[in-house]
Amino acid sequence: MALQKCKITKYTYGKPFFTDAVTEKIAQGEGAPAYVTEIENGFTYQMGDSDVVYGLGENVRGINKRGWHYISNNTDDPNHREDKVSLYGTHNFIIVDGKERFGLFIDYPGKLSFDIGYTERNTLTITAEEMDLDLYILEGESLNDIVKGLRQMIGRSYIAPKWAFGYGQSRWSYMTADEVREVVKKHRENHIPLDSVYLDIDYMERYKDFTINKETFPDFADFVQEMKEENIHLVPIIDAGVKIEEGYDVYEEGVEKGYFCKEADGSYFTGAVWPGLVHFPDMLNPDARKWFGHKYKILMDQGIDGFWNDMNEPAIFYSAKRIKKAMETAKAVDSDNMDMVHFDEFREIVSTLSNNPEDYKSFYHNVDGKGTMVCHDKVHNLFGYNMTRAAGETFEELEPEKRVLMYSRSSYPGMHRYGGIWQGDNLSWWSHLKLNMSMMPSLNMIGFLYTGADLGGFGADTTEDLMLRWLEFGIFTPLMRNHSALGTRRQEAYQFGAMEAMKKIIGLRYGLLPYIYSEYMKSALRGEMYMKPLGFDYENDAFAAKVEDQLLLGDSIMVAPVYEQNAEGRYVYLPETMKMVKFRSLTERTEEILPAGHHYVPIALDEVVIFIRPNHILPLSKGGENVADTDFTDLELLGYVTEEASYEWYDDDGYGRDYENPANYTTFTVKADKTVEVKGQKKLKVQVNL
Amino acid sequence: MALQKCKITKYTYGKPFFTDAVTEKIAQGEGAPAYVTEIENGFTYQMGDSDVVYGLGENVRGINKRGWHYISNNTDDPNHREDKVSLYGTHNFIIVDGKERFGLFIDYPGKLSFDIGYTERNTLTITAEEMDLDLYILEGESLNDIVKGLRQMIGRSYIAPKWAFGYGQSRWSYMTADEVREVVKKHRENHIPLDSVYLDIDYMERYKDFTINKETFPDFADFVQEMKEENIHLVPIIDAGVKIEEGYDVYEEGVEKGYFCKEADGSYFTGAVWPGLVHFPDMLNPDARKWFGHKYKILMDQGIDGFWNDMNEPAIFYSAKRIKKAMETAKAVDSDNMDMVHFDEFREIVSTLSNNPEDYKSFYHNVDGKGTMVCHDKVHNLFGYNMTRAAGETFEELEPEKRVLMYSRSSYPGMHRYGGIWQGDNLSWWSHLKLNMSMMPSLNMIGFLYTGADLGGFGADTTEDLMLRWLEFGIFTPLMRNHSALGTRRQEAYQFGAMEAMKKIIGLRYGLLPYIYSEYMKSALRGEMYMKPLGFDYENDAFAAKVEDQLLLGDSIMVAPVYEQNAEGRYVYLPETMKMVKFRSLTERTEEILPAGHHYVPIALDEVVIFIRPNHILPLSKGGENVADTDFTDLELLGYVTEEASYEWYDDDGYGRDYENPANYTTFTVKADKTVEVKGQKKLKVQVNL
Repeated sequence: MALQKCKITKYTYGKPFFTDAVTEKIAQGEGAPAYVTEIENGFTYQMGDSDVVYGLGENVRGINKRGWHYISNNTDDPNHREDKVSLYGTHNFIIVDGKERFGLFIDYPGKLSFDIGYTERNTLTITAEEMDLDLYILEGESLNDIVKGLRQMIGRSYIAPKWAFGYGQSRWSYMTADEVREVVKKHRENHIPLDSVYLDIDYMERYKDFTINKETFPDFADFVQEMKEENIHLVPIIDAGVKIEEGYDVYEEGVEKGYFCKEADGSYFTGAVWPGLVHFPDMLNPDARKWFGHKYKILMDQGIDGFWNDMNEPAIFYSAKRIKKAMETAKAVDSDNMDMVHFDEFREIVSTLSNNPEDYKSFYHNVDGKGTMVCHDKVHNLFGYNMTRAAGETFEELEPEKRVLMYSRSSYPGMHRYGGIWQGDNLSWWSHLKLNMSMMPSLNMIGFLYTGADLGGFGADTTEDLMLRWLEFGIFTPLMRNHSALGTRRQEAYQFGAMEAMKKIIGLRYGLLPYIYSEYMKSALRGEMYMKPLGFDYENDAFAAKVEDQLLLGDSIMVAPVYEQNAEGRYVYLPETMKMVKFRSLTERTEEILPAGHHYVPIALDEVVIFIRPNHILPLSKGGENVADTDFTDLELLGYVTEEASYEWYDDDGYGRDYENPANYTTFTVKADKTVEVKGQKKLKVQVNL
Repeated sequence: MALQKCKITKYTYGKPFFTDAVTEKIAQGEGAPAYVTEIENGFTYQMGDSDVVYGLGENVRGINKRGWHYISNNTDDPNHREDKVSLYGTHNFIIVDGKERFGLFIDYPGKLSFDIGYTERNTLTITAEEMDLDLYILEGESLNDIVKGLRQMIGRSYIAPKWAFGYGQSRWSYMTADEVREVVKKHRENHIPLDSVYLDIDYMERYKDFTINKETFPDFADFVQEMKEENIHLVPIIDAGVKIEEGYDVYEEGVEKGYFCKEADGSYFTGAVWPGLVHFPDMLNPDARKWFGHKYKILMDQGIDGFWNDMNEPAIFYSAKRIKKAMETAKAVDSDNMDMVHFDEFREIVSTLSNNPEDYKSFYHNVDGKGTMVCHDKVHNLFGYNMTRAAGETFEELEPEKRVLMYSRSSYPGMHRYGGIWQGDNLSWWSHLKLNMSMMPSLNMIGFLYTGADLGGFGADTTEDLMLRWLEFGIFTPLMRNHSALGTRRQEAYQFGAMEAMKKIIGLRYGLLPYIYSEYMKSALRGEMYMKPLGFDYENDAFAAKVEDQLLLGDSIMVAPVYEQNAEGRYVYLPETMKMVKFRSLTERTEEILPAGHHYVPIALDEVVIFIRPNHILPLSKGGENVADTDFTDLELLGYVTEEASYEWYDDDGYGRDYENPANYTTFTVKADKTVEVKGQKKLKVQVNL
């Protein structure tokens, strides 16, 4: 592979499992790798006091990952506290930036630990459970070059359909078609824009994948069509486990064909998830994957054009064996006189029922479809990836000309080619709004561009102010979905006194769409980041390198959301003079030029602020109530131009895959005198606003 | 009661339980209370958009309590997430400050709910489980006046011995006397100052209150004496539950005298806590309280002069009845084929075993010692208060001339007269360092002055940088203790590479002691706050009212700690011109005058910053390795004086109770030319440093 600005060297240790994360051939390095020192089962590096370590994708803590330890071990755990070490995804990519600058990607599907100054403040240590891995060292002039090199190596990121850049409303669960109709009606009546409604697990018949509960969602295909006519896309969830139930075709076929994960004795492994007892399709078996992928067609044939894959770490509430043992232990206890020792033992058994490492060690994958069995725990982090790949490969096969929305909870690099992710089952915590911000660039680096958090927070009860502030950031993330859990406070925009403000904020998203979609597409097609930490574009600014709560969105703007309760504004650092635009809605705005340096900026609860970089512009639409309703040919060029600004705008039909068509590109060149030159094949109405 | 600057009016609803929180007679108001509107079982108030609501003592979220709901229901729950509604204490005092200004105190020992703009952003609603309560409305010119009025009404705050303002080291648990010796030795060898070592539950014989494990702590009285000679005070923990064990005198006496809490049928209620099955002393029975209090003498006779009271919400891991039922349910399950319905049921049973409301409803207090039985759940929030009162009354009786250190986990106003609190079993989270800051003024308002958090965090693993930053705030809290839980990373200062920096930070505490002790004593004696939000002293500064992360400490200084990981400084708002003093140690410092307004201040990981208000001074000592070793007669007056500064300095012997002696006061008057006038009876060496 030849990429001028990034040199990548591969070092192979032991016998790595082939993950298919890397799509390019990378030259093997000779001798020991640069930068890091080999240690037993891993590598170590001595950081400088002020070095920044970027990366690790979906994880707790900040953009700079220093001062904690992390374990790549895809885990379903809803309590995302600061001290967690594993979330749902594995993204073994970091960039060390300081006294030296290099990227490091480890292709390894087992447990991998990153101690980034946790044990000793300046020591970075990476250790694998077993030393069967590929290490890639990436060297580049700039942070952006290193990212670009990585991305070229792992292949083009998934591209979502344009409608999936609209606002989505979700709930675990809208229980009936009528409830969905009501949600849509409330949005449309109140003119709150909306493009999609999500169907969580209760649309299914007893949580069986690819079934519809015919009582609560009768005539499903008609219902999908009815919603389409309202420009609403229904997006059903698909879970990893297949319910064990006589007469359920997916179960029976899987058993018959041998497509479920097996224990050492050849019997099918039995876990329990939402449907109760399940078998897990062997997503690592190419034949099983193809079989499972083709099941999505059942819903596509009913008009569905988007999915989300869940529970695919895979989550296991308990295994059949483990629950039996637990209950037997419980039965052996003398309940008349239980002492603390027995109580602790009992509590331990109960608290380790779910996602137990021993269960993950007890089943196997037929990784070539020909009987080569690999224990699940050695390839654990690939499960969700391959479930999503199953769907993605089917979509490419069945709908070669059309994009299908797909995102997953669990992930691994490589999966970024088949779908996006949502940022896990977060909570209605202010700190999780901040976490949403930190995760964006970390995920973008490793190729997950179509991503966002559950706006307002999934678990726990949200509040009106948190919902407002989270929407104010959410309008900038490619995936913009409001989602909440069973038993929590309702959080659709119309549930709040501040509905009008929420409507305007969501409306602003539709105004920003031409820019957001263009930046997303360019970052996917060019292997760049959609959202970047300040340090990536202001490399010589030592302060910028440490800013944790501002992000560059594409080339033209910086965002700096408020993420603290009861704050009426926030401090913002400007690496250079910028134009601040404060929106109360797409049309109600004020502007101010702010000099480089530190500022306290008042930002009311219903306001959104962006900062336009000098001699940059961004295209806005006139808004809409859904993507189809938004006119991408009638543009306002909003900018901060003292001399001249040029913007290369990408736009396409939003459904097809003709990404490389030159007709997709238009170049706007705006001068300080507001004259504009438009180069491209599109017929556009353009208004300049400097 | 006549307090010129604060008018207090009392409104009685139903038949309130007499809590003894209020020590003064307050006039009953006529008709409906001012400000609030009566609703069913409570009160409501319409807030202005920008009103601030202060108060609620120990609770989650910020200084401004708006945007969440809180339930006064003392609860032992170690997972202090943002969405918690109850922690360990009940502090039903708020001040609304905005379009109107008033304080509101509700004396009610049952469950009380505060919805402060949670359901509806501008609506404050307070509801009681039963409408038997005293409402006090406090009106004052200023926020400080309202606090002073409240404090006069509820009596003088507990005063700790001076040695308890030194640094304390704790761990769950130092298992042997030799381990304690080792901790002390490591501090002394490395010259890390230290005044106390805490004994968590394992010093006891099988977790039995007032016993000593003779194998691990042989010759306890000698050991206490040995430590005293090193100027180390040992502080043992006392738990609420008394172990059921034949031959254990406290258990047998309690049973014989009828001093334990009883169920409706007259049998003793049996719960399980650390010792296994226990009975709970009836802390609300005056006779039982006196009996339990006198047990502390067992340890005092061995030289102990400080205690901490724990598990006194009271925490109940399970009750004998409930565990029996749970295990029977478990036994009834068909473990060969457990489905999700039964699993959820089972999980629910297990997760509700601890601190179950039904258990709190199933036992009673003999509240007058004469057979007037009151169900525990109606007076739940008084339990920890009365346990601590038991000890406090004993101390006053047995040691009328000497102060004994006492603080508690659970609390209720009134208890502030008998002891302090630590801020619960927090976690090694950066957000809990922030929470520590938010709680300080909220607790100070309601009279809890001797307080602080477990520095470095109790649960979860700390990091070196978190420990440093937390110490940098902890040196300002009256209770300064490093404490961590079983199974977590060791966090004594000498465990870290940054030991030298930690030593200097802790050393700075001893330099600050003359000021810290003086401000603490004056706030206790005058009914004022030791730490205040900025809005309390800068009432006309709208920005100051919203600052959540800076505090005024006494009259002379403002503190603004760094509480974010990897931050190399922070933004600070100055309501007026101040002198910033940056310490690397007590003696290594730099100074800078900063104008009023917003500043970004670099603060390295080993630096502490204070801001001195104009024409204010503070007395510093030359440091020491423990309080006894610190010379309070050799002072440096550090200040920012453009004209003249006067400081009223309180100091006493630190052990006695002769608080009102005029000899305790010295007035320093310093002029810009560095001349100083010292008025008082003490013989002091004074050096001026402006």
